[in-house]
Amino acid sequence: MEQVKKLREQTGISILECKKAVEEACGDLTKANEILRKKGFEKAKSKSSRTTNQGVIGSYIHSNKKIGVLVEVGCETDFVARNEEFQQLVKDITLQIAAMNPRYVSEKDIPAEVIEKEKEIYREQLKKSGKPASIVEKIIEGKLTKFYSDVCLLYQPFFKDEKTTFEKIIAEKIHKTGENIVIKRFVRYQLGEEF
Amino acid sequence: MEQVKKLREQTGISILECKKAVEEACGDLTKANEILRKKGFEKAKSKSSRTTNQGVIGSYIHSNKKIGVLVEVGCETDFVARNEEFQQLVKDITLQIAAMNPRYVSEKDIPAEVIEKEKEIYREQLKKSGKPASIVEKIIEGKLTKFYSDVCLLYQPFFKDEKTTFEKIIAEKIHKTGENIVIKRFVRYQLGEEF
Repeated sequence: MEQVKKLREQTGISILECKKAVEEACGDLTKANEILRKKGFEKAKSKSSRTTNQGVIGSYIHSNKKIGVLVEVGCETDFVARNEEFQQLVKDITLQIAAMNPRYVSEKDIPAEVIEKEKEIYREQLKKSGKPASIVEKIIEGKLTKFYSDVCLLYQPFFKDEKTTFEKIIAEKIHKTGENIVIKRFVRYQLGEEF
Repeated sequence: MEQVKKLREQTGISILECKKAVEEACGDLTKANEILRKKGFEKAKSKSSRTTNQGVIGSYIHSNKKIGVLVEVGCETDFVARNEEFQQLVKDITLQIAAMNPRYVSEKDIPAEVIEKEKEIYREQLKKSGKPASIVEKIIEGKLTKFYSDVCLLYQPFFKDEKTTFEKIIAEKIHKTGENIVIKRFVRYQLGEEF
């Protein structure tokens, strides 16, 4: 877990991907860094501060007209925005939102009180386990990572290919286009739901 | 203004339409009520408490893909939801939102602090007019009604026909279908805007 945190600090890439890389590298940080670089994440990270004023607003309405999605995906130039592959990416994102119902783009969008509430629940669940506090905290970290991959659009399994995520897919597109690409916001309406 | 308020209390219809009716009736409340009834508003009002669990989620993406809209419109039965005329209504609503950029469905959705802020601005503007307080309050009411018809989807002039509004169009559809129809919520994304 220490290695995962260090790698995350170094790269800014999600805990989920850092964890995978550390595991694959058997705890070797240099190797883990290499793995992330091979996956295109490092390139993505290096572009992540570049502003994305261009892009596409995409939508998807389910055939029964009872679920609808609106999303803004930013890139750097109109050239990339008009590119068919970019537009397919936007379409896949809308389908993912419709199918998998994420609540946030990334963990950065989760309100602190929601994370606190989750931690509280985990702590309560682990109270009777008799495990030492340091272990409990590690289990909580693990559960939280799982929670992120349940509720964050970037870390959910891609519904068309469970082995990948939009964090990974977007990193690949950034690598390919040489432009920063960002899912800026989204909304999902389901007919008759409370809001 | 007193008559307008009374009519509004009696009918629950928007100040804008009540004002028009009172003016048309030269201040005669019975006549004004009749005018509203002729316009189909009374019928609409009588259905307004009926729950709308069916309906349609609609969307519109402008051809440049830089403006997008998502809307939920409720009705009582799937039969009406599937009706072509209802679906055209939903489409027109999405176009109105894209073209006219309303901020709220009706004045009920405007936060109290926004209305207070508006009133404060009007009061400030009228400070030097030297008009008596009672007149100033009436002018403020008038300006507020204007503000509602600027920012509320239901009271804005319909972009295809400036003489009508969605409040009126929906009242007509309620009359025609015999079902309550409600614009439940909407969102409008413009590429690159602050949010």
